[in-house]
Amino acid sequence: MATKKIALLGFGTVGSSVAKVLATGKFAGVELTHIYNRDVERKKSTPNAKFVPKTTVWTENINDVLSSDVDIVIELIGGLDPIESWLRKAITSGKSVVTANKQLIAYRGAGLLRLAKKHNVQLIHGAAVAGGVPVIPGLLQGQAGDQITRIRGIVNGTCNFILSKMEAGAEYADVLAEAQALGYAEANPSADVDGFDARAKLCILSRIALRAELDPEQVPTQSISAVQAIDFAYAKELGCTIRQISAAELVGATVQARVAPMLVPNTLPMAWSHGTQNMVVASGRFGGDVVFSGHGAGGEPTAVAVVSDLLAVVHGHSSVELPIKKRVVTGDFLSPHYLRFVVNDKPGIVSAIAGALAKVGANIDSLLQRPGHDKNALPFVVTTEPCLNSTMDKAVRIMGKMDCMLEKPLCLQMLEREER
Amino acid sequence: MATKKIALLGFGTVGSSVAKVLATGKFAGVELTHIYNRDVERKKSTPNAKFVPKTTVWTENINDVLSSDVDIVIELIGGLDPIESWLRKAITSGKSVVTANKQLIAYRGAGLLRLAKKHNVQLIHGAAVAGGVPVIPGLLQGQAGDQITRIRGIVNGTCNFILSKMEAGAEYADVLAEAQALGYAEANPSADVDGFDARAKLCILSRIALRAELDPEQVPTQSISAVQAIDFAYAKELGCTIRQISAAELVGATVQARVAPMLVPNTLPMAWSHGTQNMVVASGRFGGDVVFSGHGAGGEPTAVAVVSDLLAVVHGHSSVELPIKKRVVTGDFLSPHYLRFVVNDKPGIVSAIAGALAKVGANIDSLLQRPGHDKNALPFVVTTEPCLNSTMDKAVRIMGKMDCMLEKPLCLQMLEREER
Repeated sequence: MATKKIALLGFGTVGSSVAKVLATGKFAGVELTHIYNRDVERKKSTPNAKFVPKTTVWTENINDVLSSDVDIVIELIGGLDPIESWLRKAITSGKSVVTANKQLIAYRGAGLLRLAKKHNVQLIHGAAVAGGVPVIPGLLQGQAGDQITRIRGIVNGTCNFILSKMEAGAEYADVLAEAQALGYAEANPSADVDGFDARAKLCILSRIALRAELDPEQVPTQSISAVQAIDFAYAKELGCTIRQISAAELVGATVQARVAPMLVPNTLPMAWSHGTQNMVVASGRFGGDVVFSGHGAGGEPTAVAVVSDLLAVVHGHSSVELPIKKRVVTGDFLSPHYLRFVVNDKPGIVSAIAGALAKVGANIDSLLQRPGHDKNALPFVVTTEPCLNSTMDKAVRIMGKMDCMLEKPLCLQMLEREER
Repeated sequence: MATKKIALLGFGTVGSSVAKVLATGKFAGVELTHIYNRDVERKKSTPNAKFVPKTTVWTENINDVLSSDVDIVIELIGGLDPIESWLRKAITSGKSVVTANKQLIAYRGAGLLRLAKKHNVQLIHGAAVAGGVPVIPGLLQGQAGDQITRIRGIVNGTCNFILSKMEAGAEYADVLAEAQALGYAEANPSADVDGFDARAKLCILSRIALRAELDPEQVPTQSISAVQAIDFAYAKELGCTIRQISAAELVGATVQARVAPMLVPNTLPMAWSHGTQNMVVASGRFGGDVVFSGHGAGGEPTAVAVVSDLLAVVHGHSSVELPIKKRVVTGDFLSPHYLRFVVNDKPGIVSAIAGALAKVGANIDSLLQRPGHDKNALPFVVTTEPCLNSTMDKAVRIMGKMDCMLEKPLCLQMLEREER
C-alpha cells in the first residue's frame, strides 16, 4: 500500500485533535504533509501542534495545498463559501476529500458527490453527523440492504445539554448561560437552539437512510427557547421528557420532516439521552429499529470519525451507492400534541379553548392543571388525540387571540409511546 | 457495474429471508443463481420460495455451487465442518464469501481472512454478531481511527429474553419453557444459556474492536441458569438488574474477557435492553463510549445484515485492515461482586461468611436480607468491594463447604455504576 499524502484544512479543536489521533495511532500509509490555517504562527504554539510531524508544511495560502501533490484533503473549516470552490478544485485535480462540514454536505453534497464520482475520487463525510458515533458508516454499509422508512434522533448536543439540564429543574436562560460558559453554545446560539444545525444533519441522514434528497430550507424548525421548566413538570406527569428531535419519514412520494422540541415518552431510548450525547434511531422495513448513540461532538470524538474516514479512503473504500430521489418535504406529522397555556384565569376559558380545538377538528385527550399557581398567571396543559401539525397551528392562531392568554400558547408534538 | 452471480447456502429462516429482502429491494448488479440445501423439494414449498427467481438453480450437491461461475457465496448453514472446507474451496477458486457463521469466524476466522486476502477476494461477516445491528461495519469503518480498549455487550437474544422476563417477576424454568415454545431457545439451550454462543461473538468483536485474536476456549463462561427470581429482587435493591454480559478489555498485553450473568446498574444503557434486543458498547480512548442496539436475531434483521454485506462486496468493498495481535486471555476482572447464599439460619453464619471473605482478602461492602423468608431456607446477599473473580472463586469454594449452606453460593460480577 503506497503512502498517501494528507492535507489538513483547519487546525482548530477538531483539526488539532486529528493531528493527535493520527500521531497516536501511528497508522501505516498516511503522511500529514500540509496544514492550512490563518495565522499559522499562533496555531504552531497550540498544545496539539506537538503532534504535527516536523516535515509538515504549514501554510496560510490555500493554493499551496490545492496545487500540491497531496492525495487526500481533510476539510475542517466549515461553511459554504469559499470551501465549496476549494473542494471542487481539489476533486477536479484528483484529490479525495474527507470533510465534517454538515452545512456544505446538506446544501451542496449531491453536486459534490456527483463531481467526485466523475473524477473517480472519494468524498466521505462520516463526521458530519453525530461526530464520534458511526451513524453514517453504519447506515451506508450496515443497513444498505434494508429499506429505512424513518429516521429520528438527537443530533445537536447543545440542545440536549440544555434540555436535559432543564429536565433536572433548571430554567432555560440559566442553562444557556452555563452552556455558553462551558463552550457548548455559541455567543449567538441560534444555529443550535433554533434547529438549523440539526436540520442540516437531518437532511444528510435523509439522503443516506431514506435515499431522499431534501431542500433544507423546506424543513420546518421550532426553537427550543420557548420551552420552560413548567413544561418538564407537565411532561413528567405524562410519562415523558422533552428533547430536540429531528425526524424524517418517507410517506408515499413525500418526506415528513421536522426539527422541534418534542415530548418523548420515557419508554423510548431517546428519553435516556443526556448531556451532549447524540442518538439516532433508524427504522427499517426488515431490520426494525436500530439505535446508535455516543458523543456527538467535541474535538477528539469528531477526530475519530475523521480519521476513520481517512483510513477508509486510504484502504480503498468504496461506498454502496443506491439511487437517491429528490423529495418534497412536508412538516405535517399526524401525532398527538401538547398545548401549554398561561392564562389569566376566568370562567369559560376551558370552554373557549375546547371550542377552538373543536373548530379545527382536534380532539382533547387530557387536561392537566398542577396546583399551586397564581390564578392571574395560570399555566395549564391540554393534550390532543393525533392530528396534523398544520391543524394545531390553526388552533394556536385562534387561541393566541383570546384576551385571557398572557403568552402565546406553546404547542409541542408528542412522539407515540410505542416503537413500531 | 457488471452483474454478480450469487449462491445461497442454506434456505432456512435467514436464507429464505435473504431471498425476500433481495427480491423486495430490487438491487442492481445482483443475480441469485444458485441455492444449496438438503431436501430441495421441501424448501421449494416454503412461503419465501416465491421470492426466488425462476432462473435460480436449486441443488442438493455443494459441488454444483463450488464448481460454478458464481462470484459470491452466501453461507448461512452454520457450524465448523464441512463448512470451512467448502468456503476454502470457494475462496481458492476466486469467489468472495458473505457469512453469518459466528462459530466459524470466531474459531477459524483468522486463517480464512488470510486465505481471502491471498486470493484477493472478500470474506465479510457483518451478520455474525448482533444480526441486524451494524456493530461490525460501525467498528470496522466508523471507529477504525480510535483505539478501542473495552467492548461490552448483550449479544445473545435468548438470554436477554429470559433475564428481562425474570426481571419482571418470572422464574427461570418457566421463561426458558416459554422461550422454547416461541422458538427463541433450542430444545438443548446450553449454547445460549451457558454462554458459548455469546463467547464466539465476543471473540469476533475482540478481533475487530480490540484488534486482539483470542482463543474462545480460554474465555471463561458462567451459566445464567443459576440466577433466580430472588436475585432480581436483591439486584433491584442495589439499583441494578441482571443481564448476560460479554465483556473484553485490553489490559497491557492481555485481554480480560468473560461471558456471565452480571449485575448491571440501572444507570447504564445495557440495563435498558429488553426482550431479544442486542446491545454493544465500544469504549474508545478518544471517542468515549459508543452504543449500538437493535434486533440481534430473527430472519429478516439478520438477512438485512447479510444483504448489506453482499452489497458492500458488489460495490467494491474493501475493509480497513489494521494489525491484529494474538492475546492471552484472563477471566480475572477487578470489580465488586454480588454473593447470594441460601442458608439454614443459625447464629454465627454471618461471622463465618465474613471470616471466609477476610481469609481471601475481600472486603464486604453491604449485607442485604429481605424480610419474609423461612429461617430454614434463608436467602441473603453480601456485596464486596472490588476484588478479582479468582479471589471470589476461592471464597465461594470455602463457603460452599459450610454446613449451613443449602445450595452453592451464587457469585455474580457487578459492573461499575459510572461509565468512564
